[in-house]
Amino acid sequence: MSPEPRLLEQGAALEIQLSGRALRFHALWLRDNAPDEATRSPANGQRLITLLDIPQDTRIAEASWRDGALALRFEPEGKSVAFDPDWLRAHAYDLPAPPAAGWTGAEIRRWKATTAAEVAVERYDEIRSDRAALRRWLGAVRSHGFARLTGVPIEPGAVCEVASLFGYVRETNYGRAFDVRAEVNPSNLAYTNIGLQAHTDNPYRDPAPGLQLLACLRNNVAGGGSIIVDGFKVAQRLQAETPRGFALLSGYCARFDYSGASGVRLRSKRPLIELGPDGELIAVRFNNRSAAPFIDIPYDDMDDYYNAYRRMAELIEDPALSFRFQLAPGDLFIVDNLRVLHARDPFTGGGERWLQGCYADKDGLLSTLTALEEEA
Amino acid sequence: MSPEPRLLEQGAALEIQLSGRALRFHALWLRDNAPDEATRSPANGQRLITLLDIPQDTRIAEASWRDGALALRFEPEGKSVAFDPDWLRAHAYDLPAPPAAGWTGAEIRRWKATTAAEVAVERYDEIRSDRAALRRWLGAVRSHGFARLTGVPIEPGAVCEVASLFGYVRETNYGRAFDVRAEVNPSNLAYTNIGLQAHTDNPYRDPAPGLQLLACLRNNVAGGGSIIVDGFKVAQRLQAETPRGFALLSGYCARFDYSGASGVRLRSKRPLIELGPDGELIAVRFNNRSAAPFIDIPYDDMDDYYNAYRRMAELIEDPALSFRFQLAPGDLFIVDNLRVLHARDPFTGGGERWLQGCYADKDGLLSTLTALEEEA
Repeated sequence: MSPEPRLLEQGAALEIQLSGRALRFHALWLRDNAPDEATRSPANGQRLITLLDIPQDTRIAEASWRDGALALRFEPEGKSVAFDPDWLRAHAYDLPAPPAAGWTGAEIRRWKATTAAEVAVERYDEIRSDRAALRRWLGAVRSHGFARLTGVPIEPGAVCEVASLFGYVRETNYGRAFDVRAEVNPSNLAYTNIGLQAHTDNPYRDPAPGLQLLACLRNNVAGGGSIIVDGFKVAQRLQAETPRGFALLSGYCARFDYSGASGVRLRSKRPLIELGPDGELIAVRFNNRSAAPFIDIPYDDMDDYYNAYRRMAELIEDPALSFRFQLAPGDLFIVDNLRVLHARDPFTGGGERWLQGCYADKDGLLSTLTALEEEA
Repeated sequence: MSPEPRLLEQGAALEIQLSGRALRFHALWLRDNAPDEATRSPANGQRLITLLDIPQDTRIAEASWRDGALALRFEPEGKSVAFDPDWLRAHAYDLPAPPAAGWTGAEIRRWKATTAAEVAVERYDEIRSDRAALRRWLGAVRSHGFARLTGVPIEPGAVCEVASLFGYVRETNYGRAFDVRAEVNPSNLAYTNIGLQAHTDNPYRDPAPGLQLLACLRNNVAGGGSIIVDGFKVAQRLQAETPRGFALLSGYCARFDYSGASGVRLRSKRPLIELGPDGELIAVRFNNRSAAPFIDIPYDDMDDYYNAYRRMAELIEDPALSFRFQLAPGDLFIVDNLRVLHARDPFTGGGERWLQGCYADKDGLLSTLTALEEEA
């Protein structure tokens, strides 16, 4: 067994050895996260007490390894609790600082043209009936920010059925599902036959939809190819080339708006590259059509900001970073809409191109994926 | 008329006088935001060009006031565009830096117990039929983060009808609408008769729902009062008392999770107090039941972090900051769920307390409100 725990600061903290590493934990933190039935509901895992129920002067009065668990007694409550060492290892916070800004979690795989093909194409009937196939498919969305599907029923509404395999459709002013096809008086440029620069959808919405699904119902035009680009890869390239440009695009907010239809006046203020407070890269937004005037960058930084914005646009158009494919009826793709940009080639000819799309949120997808992984 | 515009840096920028203030704009910024029909679709306002369509060496070759507008010629495109001075004033960015972290937009009114009553209670039939009443009601949600309604039909689903007056229900694993009443085997502590500490809903979701609506269908228990607290006011108080505590709660992520039901494994990592990159206060999250172990705070800061967390909890329970009311059948309240916390007193007795709730997103509400304001 490990060496005995060592109390620090009169029991306000302790140090234990786990897998040869010294890890410190605070008494208050341990008490707040105690796994006993009076602290956490055994039925639903929710915490039954508030921080104010825990004495501020909580101390560890006794600590020892007992039956493979860390046994603690907290005073002044006189409360004894045992902690699983695996749980402690998984929740250790006495760790090196996170890396420099722009890092991503271990599950994220940034990709470029040559590695996008790693992502397998699944079949609709398989992900419906085979939980391992669904797990693979959702796993690709988590790791690569996109995934493809074939054999989707060629009928309106099928795109929402796909979303319901992992979560819930986010309804918007465009409806539950929306049709993407050339229209005579389009309320949105997507509903024309012009090419669309790679973009994330609806950055003028806050929260922007975390996922977009697009299913192909008809496609016999010339052109109209689909292109996707990993915005996290673009951000990484940009940061490598110009750390200051990356700092500007992540340090100031951009603005987006959309007023295409009556009664709709959507506006947002969010950075093109969004970092968490610890520097984790959490979102990329990019959309030339709905970019509003950027008014949150000071005059003295605007020149460099625009240079970085231009460089970002160039990287987004770099063929080495983009993956191109054709959608046939029954094909569908899904993108992490806060990461992966999608584009469309212009199209011509007498034919018809009809896609149907819907939005969903990523929390539902990740929840379903985690539950599938626990089953496996 | 104003003095003539002055070109700066060989036309890479210019300076104009507007309402006695000197404002500088860059040539590239002006060109990117040109209002002409080749740059912006007259039909839907979307930008028709990308930044890469604009020469990087864009310069202003000529600038003058003409017929009350700022007339510019851009080279090398040789493109002439006129800008409305009111538009330029509204989109000026040559401005003083934003205030210190924790500021909010001009439309936000932080409130405490004595000022919460400012918010009028509207009637359902009026906000349905009278656009001015709807504007007032939605305006309260924007300014105060909450609003109340009476006369809502006492029937399941009515809460979703209210949401449809301004936007779209966000469906989740709890359904489109969910019932809040005491259950025998609750999947969530909300479905019991215990008191609930003031909290924001579903912080374990990302994005967390921006709005929560709760309608009362039945209430004849003893207790069960509703309490709301302005999290933005709490954040302000905390910052005034302990700038370091505020910096810690906004500078490190907390974590939340929920696994109450089978197949649901929701997790998030977001700060308790969220700031934009420019220090704007944009969200507060607080929920003792679903707070997961916080593992993103370094050991050396954890003690002070927990002290600030405790102080935040104390402020949330301060009667001087909370507003208490009773819900009768037909009453409804809505909160900005990323700002205003809600709580429930415990209840007892043989009676029944049945609320029905739903979630929605704030972008739809703000869009509808802005459109109503443009009409007025």
